[in-house]
Amino acid sequence: MMLMELRERVWRANVALPAEGLVTMTSGNVSGRDPDTNLVVIKPSGVKFEALTPENMVIVDLDGNLVEGDYGASTDTATHVYVYRRRPDVMGIVHTHSNYATAFAAVGKSIPVYLTAIADEFGGPIPCGDYARIGSQAIGKEIIRAIGNSRAILMKQHGVFTVGETPEAALKAAVMVEDVAKTVWLALQIGTPEELPQEEVEANHDRYQHRYGTREAFTK
Amino acid sequence: MMLMELRERVWRANVALPAEGLVTMTSGNVSGRDPDTNLVVIKPSGVKFEALTPENMVIVDLDGNLVEGDYGASTDTATHVYVYRRRPDVMGIVHTHSNYATAFAAVGKSIPVYLTAIADEFGGPIPCGDYARIGSQAIGKEIIRAIGNSRAILMKQHGVFTVGETPEAALKAAVMVEDVAKTVWLALQIGTPEELPQEEVEANHDRYQHRYGTREAFTK
Amino acid sequence: MMLMELRERVWRANVALPAEGLVTMTSGNVSGRDPDTNLVVIKPSGVKFEALTPENMVIVDLDGNLVEGDYGASTDTATHVYVYRRRPDVMGIVHTHSNYATAFAAVGKSIPVYLTAIADEFGGPIPCGDYARIGSQAIGKEIIRAIGNSRAILMKQHGVFTVGETPEAALKAAVMVEDVAKTVWLALQIGTPEELPQEEVEANHDRYQHRYGTREAFTK
Amino acid sequence: MMLMELRERVWRANVALPAEGLVTMTSGNVSGRDPDTNLVVIKPSGVKFEALTPENMVIVDLDGNLVEGDYGASTDTATHVYVYRRRPDVMGIVHTHSNYATAFAAVGKSIPVYLTAIADEFGGPIPCGDYARIGSQAIGKEIIRAIGNSRAILMKQHGVFTVGETPEAALKAAVMVEDVAKTVWLALQIGTPEELPQEEVEANHDRYQHRYGTREAFTK
Repeated sequence: MMLMELRERVWRANVALPAEGLVTMTSGNVSGRDPDTNLVVIKPSGVKFEALTPENMVIVDLDGNLVEGDYGASTDTATHVYVYRRRPDVMGIVHTHSNYATAFAAVGKSIPVYLTAIADEFGGPIPCGDYARIGSQAIGKEIIRAIGNSRAILMKQHGVFTVGETPEAALKAAVMVEDVAKTVWLALQIGTPEELPQEEVEANHDRYQHRYGTREAFTK
Repeated sequence: MMLMELRERVWRANVALPAEGLVTMTSGNVSGRDPDTNLVVIKPSGVKFEALTPENMVIVDLDGNLVEGDYGASTDTATHVYVYRRRPDVMGIVHTHSNYATAFAAVGKSIPVYLTAIADEFGGPIPCGDYARIGSQAIGKEIIRAIGNSRAILMKQHGVFTVGETPEAALKAAVMVEDVAKTVWLALQIGTPEELPQEEVEANHDRYQHRYGTREAFTK
Repeated sequence: MMLMELRERVWRANVALPAEGLVTMTSGNVSGRDPDTNLVVIKPSGVKFEALTPENMVIVDLDGNLVEGDYGASTDTATHVYVYRRRPDVMGIVHTHSNYATAFAAVGKSIPVYLTAIADEFGGPIPCGDYARIGSQAIGKEIIRAIGNSRAILMKQHGVFTVGETPEAALKAAVMVEDVAKTVWLALQIGTPEELPQEEVEANHDRYQHRYGTREAFTK
Repeated sequence: MMLMELRERVWRANVALPAEGLVTMTSGNVSGRDPDTNLVVIKPSGVKFEALTPENMVIVDLDGNLVEGDYGASTDTATHVYVYRRRPDVMGIVHTHSNYATAFAAVGKSIPVYLTAIADEFGGPIPCGDYARIGSQAIGKEIIRAIGNSRAILMKQHGVFTVGETPEAALKAAVMVEDVAKTVWLALQIGTPEELPQEEVEANHDRYQHRYGTREAFTK
């Protein structure tokens, strides 16, 4: 079987989706791209999360043709491979209908940088793309058009896509987008949050992306 | 003991209700109809979910008469058998008071097709039926009158009923109706969601019902 | 050690409080009264739920005097014994700060019979008592004054007390009051729920209390 | 390895954060101060909660210099040590982005004493400090300026810090601030909560801090 290590990682990220409360039943999916072959490992279509294994992940090429797998590839495969073709830096993609983020998508609203956590992870507002039909190239095109430098995009009346330099990074962005969407949603019910000034957005994003998790001394 | 395989499936669907967060204490129930005998396997009345077993499921005929069982059949049995009598295509029924869906029922509002996930699973708005008294034929009649082609119906000031071609399909609809009710509820607090155009509703429903979970190539 | 069976039941009901999501840290407590001796088994004060055992439950008499126990009795003991003294039918009491029910208490609002589930379990509106100071007889007096025939009462700016003919019945009422408070809270954000007519309240309550969980045939 | 007992306690408090639903992914941290050496045990930076062990906790001095550890200290270390320097009574600090409390922080609102549980644990309103940049002394300075006698402070557009006489006490305050923030948030959607009178705030706080969890007789 091909790409066993990537199969294992993509499987692990897929089963994290229900564990993190981001999906119900069969909705949602994660893929990862192999840097050497450009092949994509993706969730099979319509299989329950608890029935997923590294072995039943599906492998497709960048045109979405089946390379290895007993099941059909995820219904969102056309979207994943479109994004991989246009964004060589992206090696992992996650799609969910997580409730709070999808509520913003339902009303077509982006999420401004109201919180340091949004600056940290996303470095700017989380954009909302226009409505596009599932299963065609339309969603991929709209993601590429609207995502900018963000790791996450809301897709109108549909759900969330996140991208990352690994499947794990895209998963983290999917967890964080739901978490900040929840806090912002709660804040909007009790007041009028303000956007962080641009210099604070940049300072937070720089610290989080470059110094976080390292042994480098913090500035006192 | 009769219908052991169906007992096992109906038991499994019943214990999924608390696992999916759809019920509290003894509320909620699942039934399944045997296609050969038209007998119905249903949850016993007033038994806690953790005490359910395949063996203590109750079997009734289509008039609701007890055929096999040490407990009384669910207080909602009259509703289940009424729906089975009028809808030969229905082989599984689920009833819950899941919070978000029941909130729409409390105010007598249906759930419009604001999200692709609603088009996917339900193919149209999720209707809200009029108030009807529990324990009589009134609820079954109102379900038949108002459910149309939907897999789910909200019953005013009461809760949710879902139907399916299997108990598992009815369970999935019960999980999905709560999930989309939550997202729509959240969306209504932060803006004014729009309904998907009818052609998008149909395109999504067709894709989800006919091509999802198969190996058929997706359209690029 | 005295009253081992009741100790076990009261312990089991106490540890159900965090399992049902009704309490945080050390808040909340359950007691049960022994019908033969009128002694009351109650949670020790300030002990974490995971450290509770049947053996460290505390026994007090109806005046709140310590009869057996290595810890002090719950800070709410004065309330429990006051209610037991005035309500000979009550054999179990639960106190929580469960979030949705306590939100109604925070604004001093009772919960009307908007749902069949409220009619089923409570048979009428869930009243909200006036503010009373914790640790004195004041709370017990207000519960007796305001609870009527309900199994639950909200105490203003404080939390919830439920009573029952057993500790298990009081626990069920505590679970149900939070569940219906959540659904009603959700409904109030999206519309104006109506109260069930009195005859529907009575019909539901009668069915639920007298025929539910029995083998008696349901009315078609 | 130094301070094994404190390492164990701080590790246990850190892993309680996800168990209590207060953090996602790598956000949030707990530290504890050793009373003999003034050394501080703190979570390593950017390590997932499930990968934490007593051994990979980091030890720093009160100036934030690394004393023992294979990882960098938490990105919030400058804040922790600043507070320890100015508040000799504080021996434990917790930081989270818990959703409900952070929603109040997002809109710069303190939480008034609307509930007895707020009086019990905090003895007054939970203040909201001004915005301050992460990773510098700015946050520590603002905490010292604005926290007063509270065990918790909301930091504008950022999150929550709690302090205690032990790491466990700071953890309890972090759990309680989220719990009361949730109830207050819910209450604000359905009415206008009133503040408890000052004498009730004091009576509740005194009872909770001095008599709760002891064997002392309660006042009838």
